[in-house]
Amino acid sequence: MEAARAVFAENGYHHATVRTIAQRAGVDPAMVKHWFGGKEGLFTQAVLQVPFDFRDVVADVTADGPERLGENIVRRFVTTWDGAGGDRFVALVRSITTYAEALDALRDTLVNQLFTPIAQVTGSDRPDLRASLCATQVIGLGMSRYVAGIEPLASADVETLVATIAPTLQRYLTDDLGIATD
Amino acid sequence: MEAARAVFAENGYHHATVRTIAQRAGVDPAMVKHWFGGKEGLFTQAVLQVPFDFRDVVADVTADGPERLGENIVRRFVTTWDGAGGDRFVALVRSITTYAEALDALRDTLVNQLFTPIAQVTGSDRPDLRASLCATQVIGLGMSRYVAGIEPLASADVETLVATIAPTLQRYLTDDLGIATD
Repeated sequence: MEAARAVFAENGYHHATVRTIAQRAGVDPAMVKHWFGGKEGLFTQAVLQVPFDFRDVVADVTADGPERLGENIVRRFVTTWDGAGGDRFVALVRSITTYAEALDALRDTLVNQLFTPIAQVTGSDRPDLRASLCATQVIGLGMSRYVAGIEPLASADVETLVATIAPTLQRYLTDDLGIATD
Repeated sequence: MEAARAVFAENGYHHATVRTIAQRAGVDPAMVKHWFGGKEGLFTQAVLQVPFDFRDVVADVTADGPERLGENIVRRFVTTWDGAGGDRFVALVRSITTYAEALDALRDTLVNQLFTPIAQVTGSDRPDLRASLCATQVIGLGMSRYVAGIEPLASADVETLVATIAPTLQRYLTDDLGIATD
């Protein structure tokens, strides 16, 4: 993590390479990919300090099959960020509105390591569109609860959020989206 | 608007008053409330430069009755911000993550002038919770489309967004939320 922060600081996100970071840390590049999911995962964890590995989240939320995805995503998201502290989410949002590189890294990670793998589990059509729809709801939940503090949602318990918001994610992932498919 | 910007800059959001702003502009305070919806609306329009009056939005999206709310909200939101330019939305998010007063003003406006009046139109239970649920989806749509640029959603046409996201808002506003009511 220290090596990653140093290399990203010196070279910037786009010019940093896993090879350089691995060399600095004195480890094999393949190990860095295995541990952190490559450059995007390393940046989000080491620099943006996202308090989890996106690949662990995918494994956890998909463990109970397609029909429990909505519930598991909301529960995991809320318990993780409630536990980490809302300030961490605010810092993340501030970094992506301030540094284009932070935005690029987070978008790549959200799409490639989180929502697309989750959407692909269902075998539904349009996993790319479904993944981005899930992103809207999850990001908006985080913004409303941790950044904007919109009540009563900001103080609602996790079961209320699961009951009300999980059906949205479930629909985005497994139901007919009501659009022509190509 | 100029008088409002000057008074907010000099006194800050919390200490600025409609009376002081009206006096600076040489108009009646009642007129300021009528035109801008009071201090919150004035701050969001004059300082945050939100490109619409929230009360106009309420009138427009509720015009076709409760069963068209979801569709009208998504269509109005996307056409307004697509038209204003995504940079405006990014600037808004940056301001609320940087200045606590901007956040207070925007939250008050979103709740008091936008989502709560919309939720109250339906006569459903828990209008406060429904309003905050709507906020999560609309804010997340804006973040994903204009700030994060998550594809394919960021480039999707308005009809695709209406078809996929309107049912979420419609459910939040008019359907059984699946929680015990008190």
